[in-house]
Amino acid sequence: MSAFKLLLLPGDGIGPEIAAEAEKVIALLTRAGVAQFEIERGLVGGAAYDAHGVAISEDDMKRAHAADAVLLAAVGGPKWDGVPYDVRPEAGLLRLRKDLGLFANLRPAICYPALADASSLKREVVDGLDIMIVRELTGGVYFGEPKEIVDLGEGQKRAVDTQVYETFEIERIGRVAFELARKRGNKVTSSDKANVMKSGYLWREVVTALHKREYADVQLEHMLADALAMQLVRWPKQFDVVVTDNLFGDMLSDEASMLTGSLGMLPSASLGAPDEKGKRKAMYEPCHGSAPDIAGKGVANPIAMIGSVGMALRYSFDLPKAADAIEAAIGGVLAKGLRTADIKGNAPSSVSTSAMGDAIVAEL
Amino acid sequence: MSAFKLLLLPGDGIGPEIAAEAEKVIALLTRAGVAQFEIERGLVGGAAYDAHGVAISEDDMKRAHAADAVLLAAVGGPKWDGVPYDVRPEAGLLRLRKDLGLFANLRPAICYPALADASSLKREVVDGLDIMIVRELTGGVYFGEPKEIVDLGEGQKRAVDTQVYETFEIERIGRVAFELARKRGNKVTSSDKANVMKSGYLWREVVTALHKREYADVQLEHMLADALAMQLVRWPKQFDVVVTDNLFGDMLSDEASMLTGSLGMLPSASLGAPDEKGKRKAMYEPCHGSAPDIAGKGVANPIAMIGSVGMALRYSFDLPKAADAIEAAIGGVLAKGLRTADIKGNAPSSVSTSAMGDAIVAEL
Ligand SMILES: CC(C)[C@H](C(=O)O)[C@@H](O)C(=O)O
Ligand SMILES: CC(C)[C@H](C(=O)O)[C@@H](O)C(=O)O
Repeated sequence: MSAFKLLLLPGDGIGPEIAAEAEKVIALLTRAGVAQFEIERGLVGGAAYDAHGVAISEDDMKRAHAADAVLLAAVGGPKWDGVPYDVRPEAGLLRLRKDLGLFANLRPAICYPALADASSLKREVVDGLDIMIVRELTGGVYFGEPKEIVDLGEGQKRAVDTQVYETFEIERIGRVAFELARKRGNKVTSSDKANVMKSGYLWREVVTALHKREYADVQLEHMLADALAMQLVRWPKQFDVVVTDNLFGDMLSDEASMLTGSLGMLPSASLGAPDEKGKRKAMYEPCHGSAPDIAGKGVANPIAMIGSVGMALRYSFDLPKAADAIEAAIGGVLAKGLRTADIKGNAPSSVSTSAMGDAIVAEL
Repeated sequence: MSAFKLLLLPGDGIGPEIAAEAEKVIALLTRAGVAQFEIERGLVGGAAYDAHGVAISEDDMKRAHAADAVLLAAVGGPKWDGVPYDVRPEAGLLRLRKDLGLFANLRPAICYPALADASSLKREVVDGLDIMIVRELTGGVYFGEPKEIVDLGEGQKRAVDTQVYETFEIERIGRVAFELARKRGNKVTSSDKANVMKSGYLWREVVTALHKREYADVQLEHMLADALAMQLVRWPKQFDVVVTDNLFGDMLSDEASMLTGSLGMLPSASLGAPDEKGKRKAMYEPCHGSAPDIAGKGVANPIAMIGSVGMALRYSFDLPKAADAIEAAIGGVLAKGLRTADIKGNAPSSVSTSAMGDAIVAEL
């Protein structure tokens, strides 16, 4: 039986509550002999700041490097609004992405039929929606230098962020998108602002050349990021795989996840490049945030977190059947009418975080 | 009777068709003695490139500076995909904004009740929606330097764009938003990515200080741009005035306009700072693009363009009653069931561009 090391980072807000449900699922997988999972625990975000005064400790970074996969729940909250910029909760997340080289962020936007009515969009617009957003995660304006605030005197400051992309960065994320498309609807929509940004101009050039050279069998279209923000609202089913840069991917994937009415349901994967043995560094986390307003109440939806375990089985551990089983179990409890508060809609009642976790374990 | 000089730039695609309908309305205003409007015509975008090899000529820039207001229809189209970057159609638009100092872009997202069913969102989510997006238009990543592509050799290039904001730029756009909010719902939502961008950090600091100093009577909230992209889909009626930077404003205003189901209906205003006499440079244009796919067919919706004349009356010519009359006329023809193809919905038939223009003139 294969053995895998997981680093679990519950983080802030509802993080610890939903992480506990993911642990139940992992324990079951071990008991069922799917594989041997060893779970280490660490701190990130506000939790790390409170304990160590940093957004993630060097020790936990070492553990992250050594793990076969990192499972992160959520970071941040108003409690840490006043902390210095360099140790704010988000810095821990950004460091994990950057230091582990997790350049490919996969964010599925799936509308569960049972939940289509929870969307603010008309049922026919979102029912059956299945988009995969591939977001570049270690480049662009998130990390480019200079990134600074300069005091100009007389009450004036100048703030600068730098959007940088090199050919190889665009190529490798493009490749991820085309490979995924071949296993799905065979269509890639690449998004940029080539009409105003030089990085967008290069993005389009590189994706176009890569397509021509290696992926001519996949349908490729280019769409400006503002037009894509529109088209996601108008008719999201026109999309299969969307590939875009770090900042556009941040906004567009959030917009897309909200379309589904299933925000608490959506997991994500952040992947590095394969090493000589074909192994990739990887981190899995829900698309949603730390929801400090409902933290500690036992009402958070653990499905995105449990779905993140499913994605880890698929993308890191090569256990697609176990991944399918988790997805089926999630579908199963939904079909039975189980709902946490966020997806309650017109349902007569809702269940707690742990009741939802237990039900999924039972279904498995 | 006051006299005003207008520069009309029909531009590309459906631009000339909808510009012609705006001219009918302006002619009527002159005949009715509302004011004396003198219309000059110029070229911008692909049309200027075809005629002069540039995105806008120096002559037309001079006319734009001399005019009391510029009316622009739309620029761009696939015909000019291959032209050099510096003379692409969008460059004309960007130069007008920058050289005229039009830092404040007002983009209303209004859902006309008669059209609520044309939205992909549920009626109750958008019916009566009335948001004003205030987008900074002459700064940020659109204009910051360096902005370049460097050849690194061995098939590698590096593209750089620079996002820059100074205190005074954030302050003056913030002021526009707060002033507008006072005349509307008294609430401003300021949007940034303060958690990853230094420019966002400064943005938040400056807006917060301005609020405290001069606009404490207005309700202010901050929302990350990705969260705003989500919330616009979830429950857009929570917003009154939204203020944000050039790039976020581009995407968020397009997303917001698509919510309304009324994209062909939405005008916009781009305003400069008032001079000693209180006069501002100004440009008015539809929120929609040049729609090359339907150009020349006489089916485009002229309402956003005619609405742009209305905004000019309100913001440049201090003729609020005439502006109200135009808005009422638009509402009137809609109430009578007149529809162009884009807003046809389940209506039995649709009318042409010029029939819609004529009907609005008749209603006026
Ligand atoms: C928390 C924040 C830094 C992060 C981002 O902007 O990437 C989040 O919004 C996300 O999308 O994962
Ligand atoms: C045409 C383009 C340069 C422009 C922009 O990005 O500002 C357009 O999308 C807009 O929003 O007016």
